[in-house]
Amino acid sequence: MKPFSLCILGSGSAAPTKTRNLSAHVVNIHDSLFLIDCAEGCQMQIRKYGIKGSRIHHIFISHLHGDHYLGLMGLLFTSHLFGRTEPMHIYAPAALLEIIDLQLKHSNTTLLYPLIFHELMPDVKSLILETKKVDIYAFPLQHRIPCWGFLFREKANGIKINKEFIALENPDIDAIKNIKAGGDYINKLGLVFKNEVITQSNLNVRSYAYCSDTIYDENIIPFIENTTLLYHEATLLDDMAEIAKQKFHTTAKEAAIIAGKANVKQLLIGHFSARYDDASPLLNEAREYFPNTIAAEDGMKVEL
Amino acid sequence: MKPFSLCILGSGSAAPTKTRNLSAHVVNIHDSLFLIDCAEGCQMQIRKYGIKGSRIHHIFISHLHGDHYLGLMGLLFTSHLFGRTEPMHIYAPAALLEIIDLQLKHSNTTLLYPLIFHELMPDVKSLILETKKVDIYAFPLQHRIPCWGFLFREKANGIKINKEFIALENPDIDAIKNIKAGGDYINKLGLVFKNEVITQSNLNVRSYAYCSDTIYDENIIPFIENTTLLYHEATLLDDMAEIAKQKFHTTAKEAAIIAGKANVKQLLIGHFSARYDDASPLLNEAREYFPNTIAAEDGMKVEL
Repeated sequence: MKPFSLCILGSGSAAPTKTRNLSAHVVNIHDSLFLIDCAEGCQMQIRKYGIKGSRIHHIFISHLHGDHYLGLMGLLFTSHLFGRTEPMHIYAPAALLEIIDLQLKHSNTTLLYPLIFHELMPDVKSLILETKKVDIYAFPLQHRIPCWGFLFREKANGIKINKEFIALENPDIDAIKNIKAGGDYINKLGLVFKNEVITQSNLNVRSYAYCSDTIYDENIIPFIENTTLLYHEATLLDDMAEIAKQKFHTTAKEAAIIAGKANVKQLLIGHFSARYDDASPLLNEAREYFPNTIAAEDGMKVEL
Repeated sequence: MKPFSLCILGSGSAAPTKTRNLSAHVVNIHDSLFLIDCAEGCQMQIRKYGIKGSRIHHIFISHLHGDHYLGLMGLLFTSHLFGRTEPMHIYAPAALLEIIDLQLKHSNTTLLYPLIFHELMPDVKSLILETKKVDIYAFPLQHRIPCWGFLFREKANGIKINKEFIALENPDIDAIKNIKAGGDYINKLGLVFKNEVITQSNLNVRSYAYCSDTIYDENIIPFIENTTLLYHEATLLDDMAEIAKQKFHTTAKEAAIIAGKANVKQLLIGHFSARYDDASPLLNEAREYFPNTIAAEDGMKVEL
């Protein structure tokens, strides 16, 4: 199976600690790398965990709190210094472009590579990137400032022709194209092979949803339903549910409830407050409500 | 002797490496802490080296290349989150205020503590801060964008009255004030003690100059003459002198020549290019021209 995996560069929230850097995830989908959020120190974490920064062409920024984007300028400058020429696409709240441009201007920098900025649309789910391998959506989250979640859904590999049929009939390229487009096959003897008999659809489509930061919000369920892996922030334990609500964050229990209601396969919690040295209490709390939960740690890899 | 020391948080230039973070120095003068430059990851380095960030009240930013200031917003946000109420003074190129304000605005943050911004004056040496313990000056450097060096000069402790005289004559408070103001002392018997006989001036004034980034420039010599410790950038070896010049940087040899011409006591070189895993060649080159040279390493402490 082609790779679909996640590397967590930072699992903490707000302020870094000795063991937790701030939000940044690298998603590998069929060897294409996507960076979600880019907190301070992200470029150091990328190097530390052996990720080739030059292979990242798409960066998704959820919102403009510092713990989600302050490493971006450093990453952009370093790419420039190392002679990058390939485009870098950034999908982010519109105001980030102002922040980037102002800093490029005052450092008198003209980047050597094209920086292509894609402004996230407010209030709606939208397809922001489509490649041969993956569809990527942004959708609105409820936080103190405008914030988006992201959904990475592997493309169905389309129709796969049965090996036995190919061995038997040896169809030419045009015939294969026709079958992949859904057509039947008629051989030289006039024998009809119905499409559904000689093909299989790849239904095992994997998906990853990233929801950080957000208050407990059931409105996101339609956006994340049935995902293979849901990353949901779990900043606090449920004994601080009132504070979580005030700050538009979620507790571990609440993240687990969302995971259950959205019928996801696995839940990954993270964005832990710096007050928790150890994530076990958060993990235990979430598992009471959604057993198939894991807790993010810096450097952790998750295979989907 | 009261402390006057330096802790190097980052000794590299442009892009961080596995062993070198980017520019940031903490100067401790009589237990007051001053931060010079604040590159990405500075707040992590502060914690790593056991420095109390809450004790920093003055931050000096040399120029607006990312490797000298991109950690500032993170430090400011974290101070806010940790409930800081004491003022933070920032001495920096005027445009930094725009960059700070834009990011505070888009993160919808009103800092809990006063941020007091002091714009550095172009083209002239100026006294930017005077405390009871230290005078701090900014002076112009020649770099690709406006850039400043900083000079920290310990205050002369003024006149110190000899212990033997105090034990012998036990002068009252008014008499002590008079002596400290330069007056002679006349005891009850009419005996005159000349001021120069019963006092000592503290002439051992220590000073630290920070020059990064700069091209080789003898115009800075008057600003740094006779300093106890000069930090001078030495981005490259002298076999790359032409490239250093093009990029308005200095070689190790050139930094040493400046140190000699300025008659400083000790030279500290740093801001090393990421191409040098090991600073020894840079150090050896500098020592040929100025033997009392040391090379910066992350976490290094230097006592003046």
